[in-house]
Amino acid sequence: MGQSLMVEKHNFTRLIEGTITSPKGFKAGGLHCGIKKKRLDLGWLYSDVPASVAGVYTTNLFQAAPLIVTQESIAIENKIQAVLVNSGNANACTGEEGLKNALEMRDSFARSLGIEHHYVAVTSTGVIGEQLPIDKIKNGIDQIDVSNNGDGQFENAILTTDTTVKNLALTLEIDGKEVVIGGAAKGSGMIHPNMATMLGFVTTDALIEPGALHVALKEVTNQSFNMITVDGDTSTNDMVLVLANGLAENQVLSPKHPEWKAFLAGLKMVCEELAKMIARDGEGATKLIEVEVAGALEKETAAAISKTIVGSSLVKTAIFGSDANWGRIVCAVGYSGKKIDPSKVTVKIGPITVVENGMPQQFNEALAKAYLDNELIKIFVNLHEGEAKAVAWGCDLTYDYVRINASYRT
Amino acid sequence: MGQSLMVEKHNFTRLIEGTITSPKGFKAGGLHCGIKKKRLDLGWLYSDVPASVAGVYTTNLFQAAPLIVTQESIAIENKIQAVLVNSGNANACTGEEGLKNALEMRDSFARSLGIEHHYVAVTSTGVIGEQLPIDKIKNGIDQIDVSNNGDGQFENAILTTDTTVKNLALTLEIDGKEVVIGGAAKGSGMIHPNMATMLGFVTTDALIEPGALHVALKEVTNQSFNMITVDGDTSTNDMVLVLANGLAENQVLSPKHPEWKAFLAGLKMVCEELAKMIARDGEGATKLIEVEVAGALEKETAAAISKTIVGSSLVKTAIFGSDANWGRIVCAVGYSGKKIDPSKVTVKIGPITVVENGMPQQFNEALAKAYLDNELIKIFVNLHEGEAKAVAWGCDLTYDYVRINASYRT
Repeated sequence: MGQSLMVEKHNFTRLIEGTITSPKGFKAGGLHCGIKKKRLDLGWLYSDVPASVAGVYTTNLFQAAPLIVTQESIAIENKIQAVLVNSGNANACTGEEGLKNALEMRDSFARSLGIEHHYVAVTSTGVIGEQLPIDKIKNGIDQIDVSNNGDGQFENAILTTDTTVKNLALTLEIDGKEVVIGGAAKGSGMIHPNMATMLGFVTTDALIEPGALHVALKEVTNQSFNMITVDGDTSTNDMVLVLANGLAENQVLSPKHPEWKAFLAGLKMVCEELAKMIARDGEGATKLIEVEVAGALEKETAAAISKTIVGSSLVKTAIFGSDANWGRIVCAVGYSGKKIDPSKVTVKIGPITVVENGMPQQFNEALAKAYLDNELIKIFVNLHEGEAKAVAWGCDLTYDYVRINASYRT
Repeated sequence: MGQSLMVEKHNFTRLIEGTITSPKGFKAGGLHCGIKKKRLDLGWLYSDVPASVAGVYTTNLFQAAPLIVTQESIAIENKIQAVLVNSGNANACTGEEGLKNALEMRDSFARSLGIEHHYVAVTSTGVIGEQLPIDKIKNGIDQIDVSNNGDGQFENAILTTDTTVKNLALTLEIDGKEVVIGGAAKGSGMIHPNMATMLGFVTTDALIEPGALHVALKEVTNQSFNMITVDGDTSTNDMVLVLANGLAENQVLSPKHPEWKAFLAGLKMVCEELAKMIARDGEGATKLIEVEVAGALEKETAAAISKTIVGSSLVKTAIFGSDANWGRIVCAVGYSGKKIDPSKVTVKIGPITVVENGMPQQFNEALAKAYLDNELIKIFVNLHEGEAKAVAWGCDLTYDYVRINASYRT
């Protein structure tokens, strides 16, 4: 059954050249309001009609002010119509004044749009512990025209140390209607599972109630954004929002809908691709690392081990140096905290089997080095204990990671 | 009571110029047997009489063969008389043949000393997954003369990527007798709590039963070796052994002995200093970082938070760059997994208060930078919730860490 749905998904789901404004009724843009010196620093997203919304937020106890405000707004009706994001200042560890500023940011945008305050979500990313220059943001809001779609500006305005914009879109069919899902994200450092340090925005014109949307987002986040790590640091500002405005006019989606799994697969594809773009653009990264752990008794075990491997500084530096240092991979398997039988473990680096039944195998070092010179490195671990599996993504640890973080006050 | 004992400890405990052979009846040495190209690679430690022994071992599931052999030896009588250590090869992930080699290494040394097999402990450190060149080791054993104390050779022979030897000794008085405790350690990479990736050897001429010695080692390890991290990777070969041969002729030590706490304090000082030497010599490190977390409700909370801070790549790179990036410290406090109240947290970088009640404080950046240019960086966090505290040690994350680990197959 799961198998046939996977086939179904591939029949209907199609990546398109698109962005978060590809679904019907969404517009987005960005501008420079003066928090950063030159680059765009204020992004906005707008839906023609209020949209069902679901969010996931950082687990860091020092949750930034805008996350508190956004969660309170969403709690009222589980619908929003607009999102305002600034970069360059995280509005985190800013106390009462920070909270006041986040509210002011939200209310100013709502006033200028003529919509209810709680229909606006706000978020911030950048330096921790400085007060938001709220006047600059209010001046920026005055310049926003939501009838004008600013091509790619939103994706640019939300970046910090990122080197590339991160977006994509796909279409699928539900009830014979075309449904579009678009996504944009930012994130480069302070990236670690548990709402990996990042911002993600997903839009869709699918018709779906907030409750079901939340179920879908939770499930998908645990297999995408929560499976990436850059440096093991979980930020104060992580947030992913999904907005679904219903303009595709499908029958209301819920877990009982016959095409629920197709929607879930589409949402997962968008979130997974965004997550991988973040990992690939990790600070200083030259390579994307994908670790698949299969044959586990429990999914949780597979997830923990894959995240431990992809988070190991020693594995990350070895991959930077194109060194097939399988001992470090095996070592990481052994300290993940999950109980497994070391004598059953198989490890492959790309196509090359380096460990079988816990024992090193002869392999061609030159071939391994050639494989490790690629930009995408896949590591496969099989525990040979069960059927569960998980995939995690990360990046190599390089001189540039040290350079960026030894000099940049975030 | 605890307070007065602390004073007592300082009255009696005195660091001396010494090593693991400073306690009565211990000898040690090292030689080159050919595992490494040139450097010493085989170290031995010998006690004139069988000594009470206690050990702690890695929690990594891929426990190396010599650790299995050593634990089996010790279990028989909880006494040993000799230790043999090779560097350059970890004898980890080596299966049946590895186990056979570890046994052969132990038995050969026992035979040459004319003592019972189970009076010898063995351990290995170096590359994972290659079989031990057992013939070279046996040739090396033939050259060992335990009547000849080889000054500093043992400490050298156990090193891998370490840049310095790590040893010290101290004396204290128990029952009016002078008791000496000496220590040696190695460790530079794959260093993370839970038997931090390292080897540690502590000798003493104190008279103490194995059971009490084990209690003491456990307690002390949790405040020393288990509180350091270099890169978050827990090795397959970590081990600390304490040998107590009783030649100081004090009354048998146990938790009921009036000077038990003084012994514990002496043992702790040796283990803590060795642990700090390892952290300071972390791969590529230029600075030792000490993080004290006080004011916790539970010791466990303080320990988890201090280890999270000192293990954060972003904190480590900031300190390398002498950047007073307190936001990263606060962020690490927030994701340690322990529940605390962010609005009560105080953070000091050396003498400079940077956060009070969870809010950033104005501080002089130039002074902060000057402080951060030191070789020992202290970070103080107070949670203002209780009385428990903990201290953890680590090092900065530098270009050299990346260089060493992108090129060195361990």
